[in-house]
This record gives sequence, C-alpha cells and structure tokens, in this order.
Amino acid sequence: MTSRIAARESLGNPSFPGGRLPEAETTFHVRYAETDQMGIVHHSAYIVWFEEGRSALSRHLGRPYAEFEQTGLALAVSEVSARYLVPARYDQRVTVRTRVGQVRSRQIRFEYEVYDSETGQCLVIGHTSHICLDPEGRAARIPDAWRELWGGVATKGGT
Amino acid sequence: MTSRIAARESLGNPSFPGGRLPEAETTFHVRYAETDQMGIVHHSAYIVWFEEGRSALSRHLGRPYAEFEQTGLALAVSEVSARYLVPARYDQRVTVRTRVGQVRSRQIRFEYEVYDSETGQCLVIGHTSHICLDPEGRAARIPDAWRELWGGVATKGGT
Amino acid sequence: MTSRIAARESLGNPSFPGGRLPEAETTFHVRYAETDQMGIVHHSAYIVWFEEGRSALSRHLGRPYAEFEQTGLALAVSEVSARYLVPARYDQRVTVRTRVGQVRSRQIRFEYEVYDSETGQCLVIGHTSHICLDPEGRAARIPDAWRELWGGVATKGGT
Amino acid sequence: MTSRIAARESLGNPSFPGGRLPEAETTFHVRYAETDQMGIVHHSAYIVWFEEGRSALSRHLGRPYAEFEQTGLALAVSEVSARYLVPARYDQRVTVRTRVGQVRSRQIRFEYEVYDSETGQCLVIGHTSHICLDPEGRAARIPDAWRELWGGVATKGGT
Repeated sequence: MTSRIAARESLGNPSFPGGRLPEAETTFHVRYAETDQMGIVHHSAYIVWFEEGRSALSRHLGRPYAEFEQTGLALAVSEVSARYLVPARYDQRVTVRTRVGQVRSRQIRFEYEVYDSETGQCLVIGHTSHICLDPEGRAARIPDAWRELWGGVATKGGT
Repeated sequence: MTSRIAARESLGNPSFPGGRLPEAETTFHVRYAETDQMGIVHHSAYIVWFEEGRSALSRHLGRPYAEFEQTGLALAVSEVSARYLVPARYDQRVTVRTRVGQVRSRQIRFEYEVYDSETGQCLVIGHTSHICLDPEGRAARIPDAWRELWGGVATKGGT
Repeated sequence: MTSRIAARESLGNPSFPGGRLPEAETTFHVRYAETDQMGIVHHSAYIVWFEEGRSALSRHLGRPYAEFEQTGLALAVSEVSARYLVPARYDQRVTVRTRVGQVRSRQIRFEYEVYDSETGQCLVIGHTSHICLDPEGRAARIPDAWRELWGGVATKGGT
Repeated sequence: MTSRIAARESLGNPSFPGGRLPEAETTFHVRYAETDQMGIVHHSAYIVWFEEGRSALSRHLGRPYAEFEQTGLALAVSEVSARYLVPARYDQRVTVRTRVGQVRSRQIRFEYEVYDSETGQCLVIGHTSHICLDPEGRAARIPDAWRELWGGVATKGGT
C-alpha cells in the first residue's frame, strides 16, 4: 500500500512549522467484493475506506490507532456522512485523503476525499465524528498527548 | 424475517385513506461478522441495514426493488448520513423502520430508525438520498408508476 | 427472521429421545450489498450466512453462542469449506440449515446447506471446523455442559 | 499497494524460461472493519483477500481480470477452502501470495498463502476453484489466450 503525506498543503500552513503535515493519503485497488450488481462499488465500502484513511493518518503521524486502543479507550463513531459524486469500479486505483477536522475534549472529527489515483477526479467526500469512550463505554476525555497530536494537524482549532 | 407495516402512524394520517401505510419494519438478529474488535456492531453495518430496510419497504408496497431494476433503471445512492446513539451487539434483535422522506422527479429520499426489537430503544437514525440513473448512468426521471407508489407513502410532498 | 427446528430428521433418530432436534433453519432475504458485479451473491457472503446458521442453531438449543463467549472461551474457525452449486440473487429468500457434525474435546464441526426457501433447491453446501480457545488464545477443552449440548445433536459420535 | 512478483521460485523452475513468474504477492494493512469481537480478523475477510490476490496476479501478468469479464465471460467460484493457522490482527501488514494451481478447459484453480509481511509467518492457506461461465450462466471454454496465460504459470499441468 503506497501512501504519502501530501506536502502540498503544508507549505503555507504556519501551524506545521516542524513539519507535521495535515493530511495523509493511502492508495489501493478496488476489490471485486466491494462491487454490487449495479456494477459499481457499493456505497458502504467507502465508509470502510474512510476508516482505512484514519488508520493511514495515524500511522503517518507515527502513532498507530492500535496504540490508542491499548490505553483502554476507543473512538466510537457517532456520525457518518458521505456524498457520492462519481462511482468507483472494480480494480480502479483509488486514493483516500484524510485530515483531522477538529479535536475537542471528548470528540474528534475526520474529513475524507476519495479520488481516482490516476486522474485525480473526486469520487466521494465525507466526514465522521467520534466520541472517546472508556472501557465501560462512557464518554471520556481524549488524553492530552493524543489531543495535541491530532489537534496539531487539525484544519480547525479545537476548544 | 418478520416484518410488518406499522399501523400506528396510518390512523391519523389523511394522506393514506386507502390504507397504503407509510413505513415498513424488518427485524433480524445481529450477525457475528457485523461486530468489530470494539465488541459492538461496526458502523458500516447499519448502512447495509438501511438498504435492507428499503428492500423491505418495497416488498411491503408489493413492488420489490428488483422489479424497478428490471426496467433498466437504478436508484444510485447520492448521499448517506447516520447518527449512532447506542451500539448494537451480537445476536441482539434489531428492527429497521424505513419510510420514504420525499420523492422528486429524479430523486428520492429514505429515512431510517434502527432500534432494539425488545425494548424499543433507538440505536441509530439516518437517511439516504438516491438519484435515478438510466442504463448509461445518466440521471433519469423516475417512472410515474413508481413515483406514485413511493410518493403515496412519502412523509413530505414531492414537487 | 422465521426459523424452525426441522422435525423431519428427528423422528427416526433414537439419539434424540428427549426431543432435542439435530438441526436448525434460519430464513432471510438476500441483501443487495451481498451481490457483486456478476449480478449474483458474492461467495464470501455464504461464509457469513454459515455463521448466522450456527447462531440460529445455538438459539434453538436454548443456549445462545453469546453465553459461550461469556465463559471467556471462543470457538475460533480453523477451517472453512464451501461448494457453490447455484447462485443466489438479490432479494431471494434463502434458508440456512445447520447441524453439528462432530464434537471432540477441543474441536467442533458444523455442516451447512443453503437452499432456496420456496423451491428447496440446494444452492451451497459447506462445513466449518472450530477450535476452542481460552482467553490467552490457547486450545482449551470445551466445557462438559456445552459438549453435551452440541454432542447431543451431532450427526457423528465424538470421542 | 506494493506488490511484486516473487522471484524466488522462478529460478529453478524450467517451465518459466521466458521469465513469466509463477506467483504474485500483494501486501496491505488489515482494516479495522475486518476484525470481529474476538479481536481478530473475521474468517470471511481472508476469502476476500484471496480474491484480491487473484486480481493482483492478473495485473502482474499484464492482463487484469476486468479484461476477462469484458469478453462477456466470468470465472464463477465453485469451491472455496481455507485453513486458519494464526489469526491476523488490525493494522498488521499482511501479504497474499497467489498462484495458479491448474487450468482445464472450463475450470481453473488458484492457491493462496496469507502471511505476516514482516515475519513471514504463515497465517492462512487456501484455494478456490472456478468455472468459466458465458453471459447466460452456462459453463464455457476458457478462451485459448487466457488458458495459455494462466496455464503458463500453473504449478500443475492442465489437460
């Protein structure tokens, strides 16, 4: 899986003086199982790709999401939204670009674009909101180290 | 799969004088494969359940969605949105209640509630928007017979 | 989800004198998301249906599989095999018939038939083998109560 | 998605004098959605990975499977078998190694190994058999060009 930090946006962004870049991309081929009988990718597959985008972003920040769960906490999805512009097809190379939208004390928002890796055509956009849960399933504060990590690459300031 | 037309809402609703009821319910057990390592149902599973809710609604209206596709048309998903309130768990009996939100000449909106079949507790709410596509993938008018069918049970008037 | 214990086989089977029946059936509609661009159900969907068949069998025996996991043990899949005879299609009503093949001290085998609920035509047959794992992931003995439960409906004697 | 033809095996294999190599590998991270509440990858996910292995092999041979379907034919899965040795986990890098087992006039068999990309530990092995179907769903001969392509890298001679 090739993936790279998109350098493009970091240049003019004074909040990344040390080089922490605001978004990550991950590229893969559409799987046959992800198609449906319309001959295009089923709309639920993009929701799974968004999640893989989050994983890729965490890896690029040097702190895989698996580490977050090792603290006993989890980021449960509280909201999903997606707009489908152009259908993806079997074996197409697609790229998911993921960025942190906003980090708050107990919540975090991620934003996504899925596009054709060759032409750059945008296929789907979306976002997810998450709430931090403790092992008992109660809302919990995101630990400071993680808030700083994600807040440092967020496109909007947190509170 | 037990499913029934919810009679509750039809009583006071003058737009269903002939008995066409505005929503359908379908009930099933959560599958093990639908869980993830958080121990709860993965958020993408509800998107698939919404779709099964649409299928159930079409069956209850006496016109399965498969018949719609036999016309050569399809209702491609253009938007999905879901809010997750309470997680569902393996083997839980859940019910998806589906209604038509609005029908327009080329578009249709469906609305969903997923709730616990025993307690009635609401777990997830959401909606999807669809655009009617012809076999070449171009936006097309929804045939009159289908617009009337779905429009007749829509919660909002079309245009 | 309608499901019933298949009475057919129990009549002449002296190993079920008390009425414990050897197999369970569960019936549901094929979901749209389960199709692929060939226009038929994707072969991986049946593997998920097999699992739902196991869940249905456990429910019918009065001991849902969730209870087994509450002991801290799990039945990890060690082998899957399926033969695809006739493709299932969207919205078709299909039935999964599940039986216990054999129970051994640390292993259990289940067998499946998926067939068209209306015509009875057999679509897919398969089996899965499972190994009992303790919370540390080591092979463990299946507790006696569960061995007796499953062994009591097994088509082959255990050891 | 990094993927490469495994050169290792081709050296001592006189049946690939012209350099057509007998197997392909594709590597990716395990997706969160592929886990279940046991905390490991759900067994049905590997079946999807096998399929992605087939796609990767076809791409490496320079003839993507999408081209095969453009002839109007399809390779329907007639049999799947998998043995699960060690569970994969979220975010783990895994590699699927795929080879053609045997090509016959209307059938083809593929073989798979899924292993940990870092340690090389084998996680799952399996195979699938496929039957060539024409647009009406009848068994059909695999076109000569494709039989030669796949037969040229098969580990067993065809008939």
